[in-house]
Amino acid sequence: MTRPIITLTTDFGLDDPYVAQMKGVILAINPDVQLVDVTHAVPKQDVLHAARMIDEMVDAFPRNTIHVAVVDPGVGTDRFLVGVELGRWRFVAPDNGVLSAIAQRFPLDRAMRLTRETYWRNSVSNTFHGRDVMAPVAAHWSLDADLAAFGEPLQTPLLELPQSKPERLPNGVLGQVLRADSFGNLVTNIDRSWLPAGDWQGLTIQVGAQAINGICRCYDERPPGTLMALIGSTGKLEIAVSRGSALELLKPAPEATVTVLGFIAPTKE
Amino acid sequence: MTRPIITLTTDFGLDDPYVAQMKGVILAINPDVQLVDVTHAVPKQDVLHAARMIDEMVDAFPRNTIHVAVVDPGVGTDRFLVGVELGRWRFVAPDNGVLSAIAQRFPLDRAMRLTRETYWRNSVSNTFHGRDVMAPVAAHWSLDADLAAFGEPLQTPLLELPQSKPERLPNGVLGQVLRADSFGNLVTNIDRSWLPAGDWQGLTIQVGAQAINGICRCYDERPPGTLMALIGSTGKLEIAVSRGSALELLKPAPEATVTVLGFIAPTKE
Amino acid sequence: MTRPIITLTTDFGLDDPYVAQMKGVILAINPDVQLVDVTHAVPKQDVLHAARMIDEMVDAFPRNTIHVAVVDPGVGTDRFLVGVELGRWRFVAPDNGVLSAIAQRFPLDRAMRLTRETYWRNSVSNTFHGRDVMAPVAAHWSLDADLAAFGEPLQTPLLELPQSKPERLPNGVLGQVLRADSFGNLVTNIDRSWLPAGDWQGLTIQVGAQAINGICRCYDERPPGTLMALIGSTGKLEIAVSRGSALELLKPAPEATVTVLGFIAPTKE
Repeated sequence: MTRPIITLTTDFGLDDPYVAQMKGVILAINPDVQLVDVTHAVPKQDVLHAARMIDEMVDAFPRNTIHVAVVDPGVGTDRFLVGVELGRWRFVAPDNGVLSAIAQRFPLDRAMRLTRETYWRNSVSNTFHGRDVMAPVAAHWSLDADLAAFGEPLQTPLLELPQSKPERLPNGVLGQVLRADSFGNLVTNIDRSWLPAGDWQGLTIQVGAQAINGICRCYDERPPGTLMALIGSTGKLEIAVSRGSALELLKPAPEATVTVLGFIAPTKE
Repeated sequence: MTRPIITLTTDFGLDDPYVAQMKGVILAINPDVQLVDVTHAVPKQDVLHAARMIDEMVDAFPRNTIHVAVVDPGVGTDRFLVGVELGRWRFVAPDNGVLSAIAQRFPLDRAMRLTRETYWRNSVSNTFHGRDVMAPVAAHWSLDADLAAFGEPLQTPLLELPQSKPERLPNGVLGQVLRADSFGNLVTNIDRSWLPAGDWQGLTIQVGAQAINGICRCYDERPPGTLMALIGSTGKLEIAVSRGSALELLKPAPEATVTVLGFIAPTKE
Repeated sequence: MTRPIITLTTDFGLDDPYVAQMKGVILAINPDVQLVDVTHAVPKQDVLHAARMIDEMVDAFPRNTIHVAVVDPGVGTDRFLVGVELGRWRFVAPDNGVLSAIAQRFPLDRAMRLTRETYWRNSVSNTFHGRDVMAPVAAHWSLDADLAAFGEPLQTPLLELPQSKPERLPNGVLGQVLRADSFGNLVTNIDRSWLPAGDWQGLTIQVGAQAINGICRCYDERPPGTLMALIGSTGKLEIAVSRGSALELLKPAPEATVTVLGFIAPTKE
């Protein structure tokens, strides 16, 4: 029998016992689950950041993995908690936009509001629904309960946060930096599907005052310290410095503009 | 068969391979165990902080979970290592006060000194009993060895660290800040059992020079940036800032005084 | 049946979803594996640091544990990826020196280049072979595939990074500080096998301008704040401060010299 997987993405950090409390609640219900920490370093209350983390990591996980996302500044208010089937995975999260990046890539199969208290912890706090509602629902779901058991169909679309999208230019594409990773690589919103087939050596990548010639295959293709562009591991254009940090070198403004010039970009709806 | 759970609470941090060494030793003895990290960010040698972490998280874990606590500045001296049954859980720890918060809430069922070397690692260092004694004992215990097998009954009470307790005032209760969590919420020692039944809107919470009117249900009940009081997820009064940090706003002294005024507090022994 | 163990040592940090992606890939192939994080805080691209982490932790793990090390600045270039049987464990890593510390202690049993694409992820990026090659190979290996299946024998010796070794002095031994741990303990390269049998109280340990008399058994053997020497948990001489930090007190230069004087050191080849 396949052991079910539950992943956790939160803004809790690792100093407090909050993540462990969620795991204790889950294991009390399903002791056989595989628990995977995605990250607990989402900036506090930064729902959009969490949405991007989830979007980046889900493809590595097998069908039916249950992804629990707890970035929930509205805990205890009337925001909804939802169970969602999307792509080939399952999600348990507040309906606050934390699923809006992944929901752009896959059609929604089912969404239920988590209203059935039978599946909650006996005593539910007003300040930690990650532990008291989302963790036990995820654990019961991993035991093959049907999503329908947990509540009633969500009558509204999932809440969407505005996602930045690249724009077509006459001679290329205009995008922006989404985030810097811990290597200092600047991950942009320009997916490789925007780029032309064949050779990328003639392209110019402009970020702030810096122009980069061509797109490399890998980091060590340039001498240490060189500013470069390449396609990162999630298929998006990255600005990097070989064996260094583009974040430190460029200190880009949040959401800094990045353009790729020298080709005719595809028309996308 | 239920898979046994072993949790780890240490001051080791995550940069060194020390936590992994404990896990390797445990898995060599019981490869089927579920390992849960509580936190490894206990301030170095801060036994009292670890005691609070354990007290906060245990209730989320099922019966018979084995909690291993390694904050052990006295490693290699004549301090005792103990295996303890307390509440519905099991604990493996130095007898240095790390169990003194949880021991205030639950009566001690059994305590054994870990003296039986059969259950230790073959070669025992003088500087890492977490790996060489506590990890293997916890692993053998998870295989349903009886606690009695690991040594001899502890003849003395568990070492107690002084725990701050709230005090009854003529018109309320006097407590103190125990710690700030990573959200900047100030967790106090005032349990909700101190507060009156019914409406808390007429209460005044005083922390330093600041007075807060009433106790809220949840963080988002006030506009962003508002200083507020509420009952946190472990049932204790917290001072918080909606979508912000009370720690940054108030910069309270360690163990700063907090009073709740406007009611007749219960008499506790 | 024993559940197989896969450990992960990387320079990815815990802020990004990269570690989770590796775990997702592994669990999709072998959902029953035990995953252990050694550390993800290896300084970026610091292969030698990772080599030391692996050397320090492997002995705690049982036979056949698969250790995956991803500190891989050369990803996407023509550096080799290898599967290695060494000591009683298995390793999956780039052939960039990350195994060179452990390879000094144990003879190499087998080494294969990971060239058989059948065992890779369907779509392989140029920038994340940890996820796309090493994780799936480790997962298949944990299912009892034979190492030979993954490629062809490595025709060259494993790449070796220069490892600092102690030197014999007329009246002792000369070594150096390898690293400071998070407690501020300075771990040296002087293994206890260099030291004489019997009493160590007459020895003098010199580090920078400081002379320490004798080698202690454990940290609390001296009053808080005392600079001291002792044998750490991996059997190497450490410079420490009781309940304090030798790193902060001494602020040693990287690879600072440490000498132990007052005895005739053994002759080693």
